[in-house]
Amino acid sequence: MKQDRRNFIGKISIAAAALAGLSSFTKKAIAQKRKTMFIHHVFFWLKNPDSSADRDKLVQGLTKLSKIKTIRHFHIGKPADTNREVIERGYAVSWLLQFDKDADQASYQSDPVHLQFIEECSHLWSKVIVYDSVDV
Amino acid sequence: MKQDRRNFIGKISIAAAALAGLSSFTKKAIAQKRKTMFIHHVFFWLKNPDSSADRDKLVQGLTKLSKIKTIRHFHIGKPADTNREVIERGYAVSWLLQFDKDADQASYQSDPVHLQFIEECSHLWSKVIVYDSVDV
Repeated sequence: MKQDRRNFIGKISIAAAALAGLSSFTKKAIAQKRKTMFIHHVFFWLKNPDSSADRDKLVQGLTKLSKIKTIRHFHIGKPADTNREVIERGYAVSWLLQFDKDADQASYQSDPVHLQFIEECSHLWSKVIVYDSVDV
Repeated sequence: MKQDRRNFIGKISIAAAALAGLSSFTKKAIAQKRKTMFIHHVFFWLKNPDSSADRDKLVQGLTKLSKIKTIRHFHIGKPADTNREVIERGYAVSWLLQFDKDADQASYQSDPVHLQFIEECSHLWSKVIVYDSVDV
């Protein structure tokens, strides 16, 4: 697909290469390191949605979770200020992960650090929605 | 927050810098270019969910849309093969955007290219859910 050439890592690597003053050839070589992408996006609703202490605990847990080696990139978020009819903003925490491939996400699911996170933090949330997406 | 130091761009830039054999100092300088992140994640349900032609049209439209300058990075996805109770997989296309800041996302919303995309493609979808997230 066309957009593969201008994807997250490709673009960022090119930007980094540009900052470093590398040649076009090198930029291209860096960009081509990226082949596929597995996006795992999780939204957490808290049992106590007004408890900033509970949100902090969840964020702390996710920060520990982020150390899992197969995670390529991650972002921990909260709802933005935008507010239109199509925008879902009832969740408390967004957990966005990028993996290089399906197998890395599967390995993350069964990683002891992930199982420990569930054990330590699952009492905090009332609902979870997960979106797993791969390149079209 | 701690995770700011190991975020999408920070990590990727460091990886790119490492590939290019740059010094630690340069890697750090590149990583620090990234300050904040606005994640805009849209999920499209098609009116004709079994029409690959309609999905292709939407993907084409999104590819054109991806040219908007304030978009830092994007990913066009489809549901992965994963299938657990918490996973939402009824959508046809995932449209994940990263902006540097709220204002860039606001500017994207009113960009003529975006308005043209809505005009040309909105007949294709039956439902849209949007998640806008910023750094915790």
